[in-house]
Amino acid sequence: MTNHSYPSKLLEEAVEQFSRLPGIGRKTAFRLVFHLLRRPVDEVDSFSHAIVQLRKNVKYCKQCNSISDDEICMVCADHSRDQSVVCVVESIKEVISIEATGQFSGVYHVLGGLISPIDGVGPSDLSIELLESRLSSGTIKELILALSPTPEGDTTAFYLFRKFEKYSLTFTTIARGIPIGDEIEYTDSLTLGKSILHRVPFGYGKD
Amino acid sequence: MTNHSYPSKLLEEAVEQFSRLPGIGRKTAFRLVFHLLRRPVDEVDSFSHAIVQLRKNVKYCKQCNSISDDEICMVCADHSRDQSVVCVVESIKEVISIEATGQFSGVYHVLGGLISPIDGVGPSDLSIELLESRLSSGTIKELILALSPTPEGDTTAFYLFRKFEKYSLTFTTIARGIPIGDEIEYTDSLTLGKSILHRVPFGYGKD
Repeated sequence: MTNHSYPSKLLEEAVEQFSRLPGIGRKTAFRLVFHLLRRPVDEVDSFSHAIVQLRKNVKYCKQCNSISDDEICMVCADHSRDQSVVCVVESIKEVISIEATGQFSGVYHVLGGLISPIDGVGPSDLSIELLESRLSSGTIKELILALSPTPEGDTTAFYLFRKFEKYSLTFTTIARGIPIGDEIEYTDSLTLGKSILHRVPFGYGKD
Repeated sequence: MTNHSYPSKLLEEAVEQFSRLPGIGRKTAFRLVFHLLRRPVDEVDSFSHAIVQLRKNVKYCKQCNSISDDEICMVCADHSRDQSVVCVVESIKEVISIEATGQFSGVYHVLGGLISPIDGVGPSDLSIELLESRLSSGTIKELILALSPTPEGDTTAFYLFRKFEKYSLTFTTIARGIPIGDEIEYTDSLTLGKSILHRVPFGYGKD
């Protein structure tokens, strides 16, 4: 008896493609493919089109290295944003997260990674030269180093600080503290320690 | 200040498309899109192509209604399979699961759903006429009703039994019992009851 793990090669190929995505196993891949199979052809076309269009036509902002549809991204092109305050982030993921807070009126600089000798990522692999050219124009007053509190994030932040301290800039970093809703009792001591060291006047941030 | 939830419309559209898939939220959708963004263009093309090809060229086997690349699916076309034993299933999901066991040498019939008055699915919405035409050819000796033990599955199984009992057929259903590895103590009483009622000779199924 011959066993037919998939009744269709087309089906098998589609499942195979989906299961290459991160965090998608074969069962989930099959479920997604099965869903698409039952959708109208034009809907499946739109799905496929959106992905290919993004990959083929994606641009990176010539000022901040964020993903953009044009030469300059929407944030950099927005005159209501404060161009003198630049928030340095690892990737567009952080741009999207910070934009979602609605609390930041400056602009961004997307490094495209973090310095990580283990992974062979050095300063020249990141958009640090582009950042220096922005700084040398003299319009930037504050650099917010909004990098993850990991060895790679800390190394990168320190590297940027040493490299750019010659410019007359204010260097800041995002506040570490107890997340809203969390209980003091269950907060790790490193975070709790930072939250005491960096305490703020009572009533601050109530806006 | 204008807020830019996504720095790119292309990115937003791709995330939107992914988040329409079942069980994929916006965060997961973004993670998947971000992954594809960093893959080579031809890899993203292959992904997109596989999905569109499947949707546009998918065929349904004229004999068993399973997904197929040709008029007749690989299982039905396989002469090493016993064409006299037909396993009736809800969808191709069950075909794939049963094929994966390597324990079934017969063929299938895919109903394409279950009778469910609440969802407006009646017998005429399923491939029951096609099954009857197969039965009237006289080559089929056994019908395995491998439907889920839900009200819809039971209703459909009973409907098929009543409709086709006029043919000289053996009707069977898949065994219910304690899954291998499960403990008797924690098995629900309905399953445990079935497993005692349908007990089999000791040593059976050791192959």
